[in-house]
Amino acid sequence: MTTVVALGGNALIGPGERGTAAEQLANLRETAKALAPVLLGGERIVLTHGNGPQVGNELIRQERASKEAPQLPLWLAVAQTQAEIGALIEAAFAPPVACVLTHVRVDPEDAAFERPTKPIGPFYTEERARELERDRGWAVVQDAGRGWRRVVPSPAPLGIVELESIRALVERGTTVVACGGGGIPVADEAGALRGIDAVIDKDRASALLATQLPAERLLILTAVPAVLRGFGTPEQEELRELTVDEAEELLAELAEGSMRPKVQAAAAFVRATGGEAVITSAEALGEALEGRAGTRIHT
Amino acid sequence: MTTVVALGGNALIGPGERGTAAEQLANLRETAKALAPVLLGGERIVLTHGNGPQVGNELIRQERASKEAPQLPLWLAVAQTQAEIGALIEAAFAPPVACVLTHVRVDPEDAAFERPTKPIGPFYTEERARELERDRGWAVVQDAGRGWRRVVPSPAPLGIVELESIRALVERGTTVVACGGGGIPVADEAGALRGIDAVIDKDRASALLATQLPAERLLILTAVPAVLRGFGTPEQEELRELTVDEAEELLAELAEGSMRPKVQAAAAFVRATGGEAVITSAEALGEALEGRAGTRIHT
Repeated sequence: MTTVVALGGNALIGPGERGTAAEQLANLRETAKALAPVLLGGERIVLTHGNGPQVGNELIRQERASKEAPQLPLWLAVAQTQAEIGALIEAAFAPPVACVLTHVRVDPEDAAFERPTKPIGPFYTEERARELERDRGWAVVQDAGRGWRRVVPSPAPLGIVELESIRALVERGTTVVACGGGGIPVADEAGALRGIDAVIDKDRASALLATQLPAERLLILTAVPAVLRGFGTPEQEELRELTVDEAEELLAELAEGSMRPKVQAAAAFVRATGGEAVITSAEALGEALEGRAGTRIHT
Repeated sequence: MTTVVALGGNALIGPGERGTAAEQLANLRETAKALAPVLLGGERIVLTHGNGPQVGNELIRQERASKEAPQLPLWLAVAQTQAEIGALIEAAFAPPVACVLTHVRVDPEDAAFERPTKPIGPFYTEERARELERDRGWAVVQDAGRGWRRVVPSPAPLGIVELESIRALVERGTTVVACGGGGIPVADEAGALRGIDAVIDKDRASALLATQLPAERLLILTAVPAVLRGFGTPEQEELRELTVDEAEELLAELAEGSMRPKVQAAAAFVRATGGEAVITSAEALGEALEGRAGTRIHT
């Protein structure tokens, strides 16, 4: 059985942490321990991960050193974080592990490009933000009270460029790290890849990878043990099991940008493959695999 | 036939260039054109590359933003450059190409750790250099007239951690990008990898990879068309062909840190495998493959 495990941001950087190498390594070692029941069961594993704070840090570095070292475009900063986090994962998980730099195709005509929504990188003064808007063609927005920020599009992932390579390594029993940060967004152009400055939702990219491999299971690790219905109300309850129809009906009542994209990605994978998806925390994973915690989505 | 192609620094950044993404991409496209006779001949190819200016730029970024974004250790900066350059190569070469993040084992007892020699990263004032020496345990040296700089060890590469994965992808006909910047130096520690702040010579690492795969040919691309004997004298001549014995005898008269490590790496590969090594420039490659240019080293 092949399982795609999408690591949550807290697998890398905990609350109040800055994201030093030592912090990320310690967190990943905990995650590796939590994943032991899956890793040691002889299953084939692909690990995916987010890169929000890491790419934010890298963009700050690029900006602050811009007079001395050339600023790289966002798609290359995404690439850099795949290697940063991939190397940390290889230092925390038992071998054999291999990290494959992953590009993900997007449609340059995706409506997302007309309406960039995803804030990224450092905060700027309005003056500097306007300058970047003019000089680099960035879209910028005011972020309540904290200053101005670049916003980038978040297009839909359409295909995993290195799919065949990832599949070949997984089939050999190698734990593969792939699709970090949702993948490096690219479009095909004249027989080659053209990097695109955008960010792809990592849960969507993980679901696409799991669908295309195909994997039998998609495991989405996050900070909470299960999907909740009626969050914050007296009727709040953990959902233990959902059919894909129930999951899709639930979407409207979930928090946008938080649990909704995870349930949406999980449902898309189950719908496309007939496999199962589990959403839970690293801490609850052992119980979730036995059906006593987490949220399981199936056909 | 499998060929390991070690790209020279000028395949990425030309004279007077800063290393912007656009510059590197344009240079790589030229290199891809020059390599077409090899790439289109149905051969299996592994591309390796240096990362000197790129890792220097990344260390400047880390330093300048250190108050806002955590500084990553050198081994992670090396990882970041593998992804930066790997993504650029994937954008310049015809698919299928896959970049495998590559770790290279070194011996923590290597004598190189007692005598760091490789200058890296930004220049500092003496005061700041002394501070870094004290606070981070760095070795620093004065670089004639330009200020102070960190120096790091350059240990011998002993093994390619992701060798099996690289081999599996090459055997499927994928052009693999590996061992960038000589690889991420690591040691085994308690069943996991421990990152080590050092840099590995990229030609040595390329020769080790070519030996371990094994490849039949090692192609070292550099700025000059061939190895020269009597450089700068009236008797200066291009060496067209050398036995491995002749190559080893020649080492003493070659420039240290320039052509010597290339000939040494080439000879080590030929000695270990009985394969052939070619040292030439991208421009002369076509003629070199026909024996009319470049330097060929064989048993």
